[in-house]
Amino acid sequence: MLASHFHLNTSKEAPADAEVISHQLMMRSGMIRKHAGGIYTYMPLALKVLRKIENIIRTEMNNSGAIEVLMPVVQPAELWMQTGRWDAYGAELLRIKDRHGRDFVLQPTSEEVVTDIVANEVQSWRQLPLNLYHIQTKFRDERRPRFGLMRGREFTMKDAYSFDRDEAGALKSYDNMFNAYKRIFTALGLKFRAVNADTGSIGGSRSHEFQVIADTGEDLIVYNPDSEYAANIELAEAPCLIAERAAPTQAIERVPTPGSNKCELVATQLGLPLERTVKSVVYSVSDEEGKKSIYLLLVRGDHEVNEIKVGKLAGFEHGFELASEAEILEHFGSQPGYLGPVQPLKPITIIADTTVANMSDFVCGGNKEDTHWIGVNWGRDLAEPIVADIRNVVAGDPAVGEPGTLAIEHGIEVGHVFFLGDKYSEKLKATYLNEQGKPEIIQMGCYGIGVSRIMAAAIEQNNDEKGIIWPMPMTPFEVVICPIGWGKSEEVRQQATAIYEHLKAQGIDVILDDRDARPGVMFSEWELIGVPIRVTVGERGLKDGIIEVQARRDAESVKLSPSEVNTYVLELYNNLKNTL
Amino acid sequence: MLASHFHLNTSKEAPADAEVISHQLMMRSGMIRKHAGGIYTYMPLALKVLRKIENIIRTEMNNSGAIEVLMPVVQPAELWMQTGRWDAYGAELLRIKDRHGRDFVLQPTSEEVVTDIVANEVQSWRQLPLNLYHIQTKFRDERRPRFGLMRGREFTMKDAYSFDRDEAGALKSYDNMFNAYKRIFTALGLKFRAVNADTGSIGGSRSHEFQVIADTGEDLIVYNPDSEYAANIELAEAPCLIAERAAPTQAIERVPTPGSNKCELVATQLGLPLERTVKSVVYSVSDEEGKKSIYLLLVRGDHEVNEIKVGKLAGFEHGFELASEAEILEHFGSQPGYLGPVQPLKPITIIADTTVANMSDFVCGGNKEDTHWIGVNWGRDLAEPIVADIRNVVAGDPAVGEPGTLAIEHGIEVGHVFFLGDKYSEKLKATYLNEQGKPEIIQMGCYGIGVSRIMAAAIEQNNDEKGIIWPMPMTPFEVVICPIGWGKSEEVRQQATAIYEHLKAQGIDVILDDRDARPGVMFSEWELIGVPIRVTVGERGLKDGIIEVQARRDAESVKLSPSEVNTYVLELYNNLKNTL
Repeated sequence: MLASHFHLNTSKEAPADAEVISHQLMMRSGMIRKHAGGIYTYMPLALKVLRKIENIIRTEMNNSGAIEVLMPVVQPAELWMQTGRWDAYGAELLRIKDRHGRDFVLQPTSEEVVTDIVANEVQSWRQLPLNLYHIQTKFRDERRPRFGLMRGREFTMKDAYSFDRDEAGALKSYDNMFNAYKRIFTALGLKFRAVNADTGSIGGSRSHEFQVIADTGEDLIVYNPDSEYAANIELAEAPCLIAERAAPTQAIERVPTPGSNKCELVATQLGLPLERTVKSVVYSVSDEEGKKSIYLLLVRGDHEVNEIKVGKLAGFEHGFELASEAEILEHFGSQPGYLGPVQPLKPITIIADTTVANMSDFVCGGNKEDTHWIGVNWGRDLAEPIVADIRNVVAGDPAVGEPGTLAIEHGIEVGHVFFLGDKYSEKLKATYLNEQGKPEIIQMGCYGIGVSRIMAAAIEQNNDEKGIIWPMPMTPFEVVICPIGWGKSEEVRQQATAIYEHLKAQGIDVILDDRDARPGVMFSEWELIGVPIRVTVGERGLKDGIIEVQARRDAESVKLSPSEVNTYVLELYNNLKNTL
Repeated sequence: MLASHFHLNTSKEAPADAEVISHQLMMRSGMIRKHAGGIYTYMPLALKVLRKIENIIRTEMNNSGAIEVLMPVVQPAELWMQTGRWDAYGAELLRIKDRHGRDFVLQPTSEEVVTDIVANEVQSWRQLPLNLYHIQTKFRDERRPRFGLMRGREFTMKDAYSFDRDEAGALKSYDNMFNAYKRIFTALGLKFRAVNADTGSIGGSRSHEFQVIADTGEDLIVYNPDSEYAANIELAEAPCLIAERAAPTQAIERVPTPGSNKCELVATQLGLPLERTVKSVVYSVSDEEGKKSIYLLLVRGDHEVNEIKVGKLAGFEHGFELASEAEILEHFGSQPGYLGPVQPLKPITIIADTTVANMSDFVCGGNKEDTHWIGVNWGRDLAEPIVADIRNVVAGDPAVGEPGTLAIEHGIEVGHVFFLGDKYSEKLKATYLNEQGKPEIIQMGCYGIGVSRIMAAAIEQNNDEKGIIWPMPMTPFEVVICPIGWGKSEEVRQQATAIYEHLKAQGIDVILDDRDARPGVMFSEWELIGVPIRVTVGERGLKDGIIEVQARRDAESVKLSPSEVNTYVLELYNNLKNTL
């Protein structure tokens, strides 16, 4: 490709609404143009990246035995009513009426349509398993679309759906997709983790998120550097840090702690390590009839309560919220900041984190302003608590059930695999006749990849102060040739063109910048765009027999003789293609 | 591809709503599945065809210098209001409101968005010309969607838009696209014609339709087999069939023609050739203020009035319709069937077709029931008429301005190129600074191809009683290998697999039917699906050293020895690829 035949339009400034780095860099490099909140045109650079991502996904999906179809963007509402999602989905589901007043939706995902297809296509056990996928435009009417392609309204998604005879088959299909996803993100050249995820409202019993690692990611991933273990922080099991509770050595005593309404302040004031303190969090929990009870949850002073875990506690299934000041005063007789499990005003239910449950001689709030109890011991000073894992893992926690120390990093969710069971197939009557001729409900799984989101996530993972640094598999161009003096030096033109033709013939996706721009302008433009390899052919260099090759991540260029360039670039290309 | 890894599901019956052959065959072969009127899923077979068509289009578009982008499906209404199409487009434009009540449309086409992009991207004459295209899902809320993919609501379209400094540049871009389209339809392996088309309401001064030739097509195309000339019948200039008007030889006379209210009946009754009669068609034509005048239009008895041409006559620009019986009685004093230009009751305007204007001694209605005038002559019996081309061409008419005889065939419109001028760029302020630094309005063209419609049109053109006959460039599979006795004969499996592997290695898109079906079922399924080449490997054949190869269009198979098969199939493949 010659740059003069392509459409490039970069700028130094990003628009004010571009808050995250990927959004800023995509706007500045001219990859996307905005038409409305969360609705963009993919300009030529972005479309090239999108297509490369799509093709990598398609190849691995096909290799895994999935079959590509194309389901419509506009889908009949009837199916969504049958599954109940017409009501349940909320305002993110864009609903439309056609000229005859019939209801339709713009697909945010395609469980309904694909299940309806399979309900009609599949009659016999012989036709299963089946895995259908498509790569198609989706629409979610986000309340506050932002971050460019990271949370757009119109976006490209690959969604696959597996259909099996029974749960064992469906779980095999799940594992097959899980492995395909690992191959896909590896082939994309991204640092990623497959993490155990909460199945949440989508239901089903097995779920993994695929997270692209990036400091700017919104999700927290707990992982064990010494094993395959990785989980969303909401789900990661926190270890008990005290193997066995020690016997009491201190007497319980209420001491003054004026102004110390946080564990950190109490520890400092009392000259004790933070790990000796216990944090109290009070919840007001509803029962079936909406009647409320007060629960006191305890974690160590240096830990945080994890509300996803709290939501799974027995008795919490009908809703809970942080207790109000009035409720706290009524039950504890004290302001927040000085609460504790010892001698509350009224009876409450106490749940201690696994670590807290094994502490002895600990410190907690005195249930009286400006006081704390010290030397508190379970069994002696108060009843044994209910014990549960209710805290977030912190970096440095030991791994559970395997060697290693847990670490935490930030990620961006770009893929999700779910075991669905009969959630959709039952409602949409997707059955098959088994070997005995008896109808059975098909077991399903669903598997999504945010194709356009990958583009943004790749930039969040790979950028510096100059711009984007594309992973080789998805870069819009693999090599850029920058001739200096294109307009005036025949030798520069000849050398640059010869390298261009040679690399093109090798199957390299190369662009020759024939726009005759000044070197500074040209360099910073290609650094912003993020092409991984730059070849500079200048009049001055050629006089000394030198052509420069620079990898986008490197601080310095390598000076080569013209005869060395082609081989060097190919080697560098292969290295960059195969390393993360 | 192994058939057991693909999803095939054919049926003997088409649904009742499938009226045209392409719709029937696509349903029967399992290519598409319906979700609502005009809304389908592309099943794996159809998606393979769609992608092949897209890739051929993409290659030629890129070769022509056009640059691919991807504009959104959901587009802001503001732009459509600016161009006036929000009001003008009618009910086919599907309008939606997002959760905040803002108006959007589902794109039926993208003039507004692309012009808005270019208005922002282009500042200088140096950035022009520019041609941006995308291949994207479109939606048109047809009142009565039907004929499967021929007139769907959701469909795939390639739309390109050219941007130039001036009209001369825009016309050059137009010609460039015109030539790209010829290459595209040739590469698709379709019989087609590029025809001069009416610019209609889209405006602009130049327009061509690309029509796929098919007996079942709705459009009539006039063409000259001896030249490049082809035009939509609405636009095709009709020749004057009488070079010079002969002198009168008969006296005018009103003769009885009881019951003969059509030219054919009059000619028979009077024993004259139909070519001697003149047909009268009466229009009521409105002027600016809505006042109506009566016009009598005359064509030869064997010709038909062309209302598109009539609409372009001077004075007809404010609307016209066939005159009512009351208007006819008032002006002619006779019932329809006996009307003519001689001695009407009231003054009327007479417009004669070019051929009629040169007739002499002709026959026309007597303006009195059951009578006609014979021996009528212009100048002598009535005043000279206004002369205009107002008739449809008929097969056998001589070509205009070149040698040859015009022929007529049916076509299906699959592409359209338009010169737009400043129709959109003016309203959306798409300007550039010229070499003198002065702003000028960009000149545009637009170029559409109905990608999914091509699939249906190709089937309309290529089918027989057994099913589809795919042109090689877009067939879902190029070769099918049908083993007979897959389940029981090791030799059949080995031979079939060897041919499969060999052809695959040659880059042929081959499917091996390993489902162990009965030969009759297997053959009729693949004939329905329309794969151009079938290789049959059977146990009995192998005993005699024979493998059969049959082209889908051929009545008989060719019997070959196993060693000849690969070479023969490759040759056949290349022949089919290169012939229409």
